[in-house]
Amino acid sequence: MATLTAEARLALIRENLAELLNPEIIEKILTEGGNPKIYWGTATTGRPHAGYMVPAIKIAQLLAAGCEVTVLLADIHGFLDNLKAPIELVESRAQFYRFCITALLKAMGVSVDKLRFVLGSSYQKSPEYVMDLYKISSLISENDAKRAGAEIVKQSDNAPLSGLLYPALQVLDEQYLDVDAQFGGMDQRKLFVAATEWLPKLGYKQRAHLINPMVPGLQGSKMSSSDENSKIDLLDSAEIVTKKVKKAVAAPKEVEGNGVLALIEYVILPAAELRGGKRQVVIDRSRDGLEPLTYTNIKDIQDDYAKDILTPQLIKPVVTNGLIEIMTSIQADYQASKEWQEITLKAYPPPVAPPKKEKKKKDRGSMHPRKQPEAAADAPEESRKDGETEIPVR
Amino acid sequence: MATLTAEARLALIRENLAELLNPEIIEKILTEGGNPKIYWGTATTGRPHAGYMVPAIKIAQLLAAGCEVTVLLADIHGFLDNLKAPIELVESRAQFYRFCITALLKAMGVSVDKLRFVLGSSYQKSPEYVMDLYKISSLISENDAKRAGAEIVKQSDNAPLSGLLYPALQVLDEQYLDVDAQFGGMDQRKLFVAATEWLPKLGYKQRAHLINPMVPGLQGSKMSSSDENSKIDLLDSAEIVTKKVKKAVAAPKEVEGNGVLALIEYVILPAAELRGGKRQVVIDRSRDGLEPLTYTNIKDIQDDYAKDILTPQLIKPVVTNGLIEIMTSIQADYQASKEWQEITLKAYPPPVAPPKKEKKKKDRGSMHPRKQPEAAADAPEESRKDGETEIPVR
Repeated sequence: MATLTAEARLALIRENLAELLNPEIIEKILTEGGNPKIYWGTATTGRPHAGYMVPAIKIAQLLAAGCEVTVLLADIHGFLDNLKAPIELVESRAQFYRFCITALLKAMGVSVDKLRFVLGSSYQKSPEYVMDLYKISSLISENDAKRAGAEIVKQSDNAPLSGLLYPALQVLDEQYLDVDAQFGGMDQRKLFVAATEWLPKLGYKQRAHLINPMVPGLQGSKMSSSDENSKIDLLDSAEIVTKKVKKAVAAPKEVEGNGVLALIEYVILPAAELRGGKRQVVIDRSRDGLEPLTYTNIKDIQDDYAKDILTPQLIKPVVTNGLIEIMTSIQADYQASKEWQEITLKAYPPPVAPPKKEKKKKDRGSMHPRKQPEAAADAPEESRKDGETEIPVR
Repeated sequence: MATLTAEARLALIRENLAELLNPEIIEKILTEGGNPKIYWGTATTGRPHAGYMVPAIKIAQLLAAGCEVTVLLADIHGFLDNLKAPIELVESRAQFYRFCITALLKAMGVSVDKLRFVLGSSYQKSPEYVMDLYKISSLISENDAKRAGAEIVKQSDNAPLSGLLYPALQVLDEQYLDVDAQFGGMDQRKLFVAATEWLPKLGYKQRAHLINPMVPGLQGSKMSSSDENSKIDLLDSAEIVTKKVKKAVAAPKEVEGNGVLALIEYVILPAAELRGGKRQVVIDRSRDGLEPLTYTNIKDIQDDYAKDILTPQLIKPVVTNGLIEIMTSIQADYQASKEWQEITLKAYPPPVAPPKKEKKKKDRGSMHPRKQPEAAADAPEESRKDGETEIPVR
C-alpha cells in the first residue's frame, strides 16, 4: 500500500466503476496522503451468495488502495423485511453476513485490517439520528423520496410506507458512519445524487459516490425461480458449483448480457490480479486437442467470444474454477471457525416442516447485493415469504 | 367527582361530542370505578388563542368527570414546522403552551390535579418508539398514511415527506402515552380510525376516540388574513376582545356556520355550568328598553336567532363577556407568575425588524387547535412564514 502513488491508488479505486460522482473529494484525500473512508451497505435479509463477489472485488480493491472500508450490516432493514422472524435470528444473520464478507475479502487476497462492520441498529435508533430523520423528512418532499428510491424500492401506492423512509435513512448513514464516500450499484445512482442534495440541507457535507455497473447474473435476465438451487451459495461444494455454472445461460457469440463473461470481467480477472498479482485467465482447450489460450483483458475475451473462438463450453470452466478457488478459501475459514458454524445454525435453522413453495419474483438481472442480486443463481431469497413487506435490499 | 355516578360521568364525557368511537372501552373503566386516561395533543407551533377554548371546555369536562388527562405538547412537530427557529425558542414555546392551557382549564373552574403535560421530545426519539415507527411504516402502505392524514396534512406530491410520518407518530403516541382514549376534532376522524387498525398490528390495544365537532370560527369560513389582529389572544385586554368580537361575522337569522352562536354552544354555556354550576346565559336588552332574556340551552337561542328575536348585536356581548370572564382568570394567573412572564418573552421575542407581510393561507373555518384553528380570529400563525414546511398542527 505504502508503495502505491496517489495516482495508482485512484486508478485502483476507479477500476471497473461505471461512474464516480464528485471524484474531487477522493482525489483531495489521496493528494494529501490520507485514506478515503468508504461505506457499503447490505441489508441482512437473505444469505450472501456468489453475487456478492461483484461488490466484494470492488471493496477488495478499495482495501488494496488503502481505503478504510465500512460495511453497514443493515439489520433493522433485515428485521423489517421479515417482521415475523424472531430478533435473535436477525442478529445471528447479521453475524453470518460479517463472517461471510470477511472471508470473501480475505479470499480476494487483501488485508482486512482497514475493514470494519457496523450494525445499523447500533445508531439508527439513536436520538440524534432520529431527529435528523424527522428533520430531513420535513425538508424533502414525498416526490423527492420516490425519485431517490425509484430503482431500489417498490413503487406503488400500496407499497409499504417504509419504502419512502429508506432513501432518507441511507442518506443519513453517510453522515453517521462518518465516511467520505458511499459505494453501490448503478441502481443506487438516483439515491446517491439525492444524498449530495439532501445532506447539505441538514448542514452536513456532500460525499463522493462510487458506482458499480449492474452486472448480469448467471441466469441472464430470465427468471428461474422454479429451480431454487440455481443460486450459488458461498458454502456450496465444488460439485454443486460445477453443476450450477454448467446450467448458466450463455448464448454463443452473444457478449451483451452474458453473465458468464460478466463474471470473468468483474470477478475472475480482478481476483486473479488481487490474489496472484497476475491479471490473466488461461482457457483450457485440451478436450479439442488444442493449445490453451491466455488472456489478460476482457476485451480480447469478448472479441474471441463474438467470433466463436471462445464458446460457452470453453469459458464456463474458467468461471467454475475461479469461483471454486475463492470459495475454497472461504470454506477453509468456515471450517476453522466454530463460532461461524454455530451462527449458521442459528441464522438459518433447518426447516422443521417441508418448506412451502416460494412465490415467483421478478428477476432484475442484477448482481448487486443492494438488490439481493439474482447473481450466480436466481432463486428467491429464502427469507422472503409471501406477503412479506418489501424493503430496498441494499 | 366521587359523588358522580358512572352514568353521570359518561354523560359528561360524551357531552357535545360529535362521536365517541369504541365507547365500550370507556364504559368498562367507568363501570369498574376507574378513571379513563385520555390524551389530547397540540403542536406547539404558534400561540394558543381563544380557539383553544373549544377543546379546553371538553378537557375541563373530562377532568370534571374524573378522567386522567394528558396534554401532549408536540414540540418536535413545532420544531419541524419552523426549522429555522432556535431550539430554545421551541422549548420556551412549549412551556408557554403549558402555562396557557393550565390557566385556561383553571379558568373553566376545574381542578387540574389529574392533568399532566408530556413533551413529545421526551419519548418520540427513544429507541423503542423509533423501532415501532420503523415497524409500523413497514406494516402500513403509503396510501394508508395518506388516507389517515387526509384532513390534517397537506396532500400533494410536493408536500414534505414528514406529512406521511405524522399519522404514524400520532398513532404511536396513544401507546407511548399509555392512555385509554384520544380526544380530537372531527378532522382527526380518519386518523383515529386508522389508530384502531394500526396499533393491533404492533400487538398494542385499540383505544377509544372522543371526537369534537368542527366549530366555525368568529370569522366564518372566509379568510381575513389581511387583519392580523383579528385573532383573540388569551392575553388580550377586554377592550381588544370587545373590538374583535364586534367585527365577527354573524349574519342575522343564519344559524348554520355562525361562529358567535357556536361559541355560545361550545364554550359559553358549558363554561357557565362548569364555573358556576348554572347552565344559562342572560341576554341584556336594556338598549331597546326590553327585559333581559334568559336561556338554558342552545336550541332555544338558535330558534330565537332564526326568528330574529336575537340579533347579532344582542348575542355578541354574551360572547364578549364570557370570553372576558375566562380571560380575566387566565390573566390573573399570568400576572401572578413571574416564570410565565419570562417565558413569554423568550417564546415570542419582540420582532427586531418590522414584520414582513404574511402570506395568505386558506382558512378552513375550524376552531380545533389540532388544525391551528382560525378560531375566534383567523389571522395566520405568527410562527408560520413563507416557505416553511407544513405540519399537521394538532
